[in-house]
Amino acid sequence: MNPALSPRHAQAPQPMQSQPLETTLKTAPPQGFLFAACVAGIKASGKPDLALALAPDGATAAAMFTRNQVVAAPLTVGREHLRASRGRVQALIVNAGNANCATGKQGIQAAKSVCAELARIFDVDPSRVFPSSTGIIGVPLPAEKIVAALPQLVVAAGPGPEALNAFAGAIMTTDTRKKIAFESFTRKRTTVTLVGVAKGAGMIHPNMATMLVYIFTDVAATPAELQRSMHSAVDESFNNISIDGDTSTNDTVLLVASGKSGVALKSVRKDFERTLGNICRSLARQIVSDGEGVTHVVGLRIEQARTRAEARQVARAIANSPLVKTAWAGADPNWGRMLAAIGYSGVKINPARVGIYVGNQALYRRGSVCAFDHNAAHETMMQPAYEIRVELGTGKASLEFLSCDLTAEYVHINADYST
Amino acid sequence: MNPALSPRHAQAPQPMQSQPLETTLKTAPPQGFLFAACVAGIKASGKPDLALALAPDGATAAAMFTRNQVVAAPLTVGREHLRASRGRVQALIVNAGNANCATGKQGIQAAKSVCAELARIFDVDPSRVFPSSTGIIGVPLPAEKIVAALPQLVVAAGPGPEALNAFAGAIMTTDTRKKIAFESFTRKRTTVTLVGVAKGAGMIHPNMATMLVYIFTDVAATPAELQRSMHSAVDESFNNISIDGDTSTNDTVLLVASGKSGVALKSVRKDFERTLGNICRSLARQIVSDGEGVTHVVGLRIEQARTRAEARQVARAIANSPLVKTAWAGADPNWGRMLAAIGYSGVKINPARVGIYVGNQALYRRGSVCAFDHNAAHETMMQPAYEIRVELGTGKASLEFLSCDLTAEYVHINADYST
Repeated sequence: MNPALSPRHAQAPQPMQSQPLETTLKTAPPQGFLFAACVAGIKASGKPDLALALAPDGATAAAMFTRNQVVAAPLTVGREHLRASRGRVQALIVNAGNANCATGKQGIQAAKSVCAELARIFDVDPSRVFPSSTGIIGVPLPAEKIVAALPQLVVAAGPGPEALNAFAGAIMTTDTRKKIAFESFTRKRTTVTLVGVAKGAGMIHPNMATMLVYIFTDVAATPAELQRSMHSAVDESFNNISIDGDTSTNDTVLLVASGKSGVALKSVRKDFERTLGNICRSLARQIVSDGEGVTHVVGLRIEQARTRAEARQVARAIANSPLVKTAWAGADPNWGRMLAAIGYSGVKINPARVGIYVGNQALYRRGSVCAFDHNAAHETMMQPAYEIRVELGTGKASLEFLSCDLTAEYVHINADYST
Repeated sequence: MNPALSPRHAQAPQPMQSQPLETTLKTAPPQGFLFAACVAGIKASGKPDLALALAPDGATAAAMFTRNQVVAAPLTVGREHLRASRGRVQALIVNAGNANCATGKQGIQAAKSVCAELARIFDVDPSRVFPSSTGIIGVPLPAEKIVAALPQLVVAAGPGPEALNAFAGAIMTTDTRKKIAFESFTRKRTTVTLVGVAKGAGMIHPNMATMLVYIFTDVAATPAELQRSMHSAVDESFNNISIDGDTSTNDTVLLVASGKSGVALKSVRKDFERTLGNICRSLARQIVSDGEGVTHVVGLRIEQARTRAEARQVARAIANSPLVKTAWAGADPNWGRMLAAIGYSGVKINPARVGIYVGNQALYRRGSVCAFDHNAAHETMMQPAYEIRVELGTGKASLEFLSCDLTAEYVHINADYST
């Protein structure tokens, strides 16, 4: 490895087994960005609910959106703006507390009016503004509250870690903690920095982005270069997690590059993509760990699959089975439910060649249960995070997938009568 | 309608909205069958766990099995026996408390040894015996306990309703009540009778049969005729229900015809199929109502679909969404979660043409929320059974699908540490 390329970790990259760190950024965010948050009065709680990020003229961007056919108004507008600006973004405006989804033409108008007002303040084209919303569905977005709050928000914008932490706090809904990942690497004495901020909790399911994720970097890149790098990073992280199997209407991943490091992405592509991958995996793990009612994060390692796609299909069948997820909640090494899920996943397998392992013990192998130590398996599954390994016996592909248990607490959070 | 064909209902057929009746058979089962149950010592509770049904020589049968690739030993043996006997069944032996699944070659041997012993007692070919098992997975079947109990079981066999009720009780696992449906019709002063018995509760999902169902009738039919009639009845009932989205490894539907009414199926096909359909729909509803932790049975009526297959795909996406199911548990008219599930169902729709209705109110229509009375919708959803109607706006096909809510009680039942 070239020593000039050694990465510098403000926060250590998180391996599959580790717990997420407390995420408050203490280091300077990437150069060229300003962040801010304020109370616009959308959340009933009175907590901060409006977040702003500003990027310099010339900043480039790439985005990925939910595959749900029902998409929220800001996604429609954001996609349109990225197309019109040819991948340029100078301002990102995010509100929490209202998803601006299923709000009809008025919803589109509301998102556009917010962008227009911000564009007016900065004297840029409205297509340079990217809107995002998260919260309840079907309630008209109070655009007037957002517009009224913009002046104070703009004044508050700053380049420091506190500003970014405030941004991360304001985009939360049922999240219990902020989700931030930071990493940088140095190339010929110049440092390239990436910081990612996410909002997750319920409705997380791997089919594209599945939450709100914003990644800021000071690398210099064309929108097409960003899109390419982002694609594989998302595929290896956010598309390999599941909380409850639902795919939201508002999921967005946005990557913005200010160019202010002076380092071109194409000259450091490997380092950039590795770092971007670490950021995405860290945020993905933070999102699963903070899933509604989650008490155990389960890393599913699917091995000996014919293809990665088949490994993912099996992982999803296991991860979305209520019977499996409730067994995990009880730390029950119930391999029978996992085997049944593998059997109905749609992937062709021979049950006699499947193996299921918890910790270093085989629970099931070659068509029969193994003589395993139940208490030891139960102990492993009592840990807040652990790994289950599945061998399919059909090929050589493998995949790591993050999931979690289904608890009574999840039901309580989601069953309360409050549309 | 031909008055000679007027159906006689011992138990009224159950419309979509009604609650299941208490199911104890008070009328004589179809002619030609004997039933029995006993305690073989497989269930730890000491409750009856072995059930027997005997059919006369010449009785014909048809069966459908789970689509799960992991199948229990009795299914493998039962399928083999039906093939070898060319669709003849003279004895059905069912044990509860042990699924004989993932038990390897020993499991196959155990199922075969039970069949062989029963065949020896009646001096018939073992292929005339059909085995079934339900209960925990991965534990060797105690065939010796079953074999030891066979003599007392055979002696106890009787033709009356009490014998059938005992049969229905012995096949239960986590079921809280017996599931029986009875209906007959008269043709030229001759009565044809059908009785169905089922075992359900957890792991119910529409992909073939999804539980244990045995239907006995005294019609005279070839195995091929039975198979044909059964196929559409199953497709209209058991394939249109979902409790938790899991598909079991042991699901079986078996239809046995004694021929003792002297009425040929082909001469009364319409009546027979209508009656069989009623039996299957009644059992399907009883199974959903008795799902683990279920407090609300929700009839999903999907309308204006391109095809019935697409309607079913949408129904399943809604019925398997934990977010939707927990909202139902809270009687929350959260149309946003249903709309999101429709959006990711994989069926191509235009959100602006979708409609969602509870009771007689539209919640969502033409891309926007409707001004509906929340309290009235909440009241409707507080009922133990109610209907939600979805218009897809893509065609003319429709479908009725039965589902239920996801409660904390479900989690408690399934999270207990007891593989």
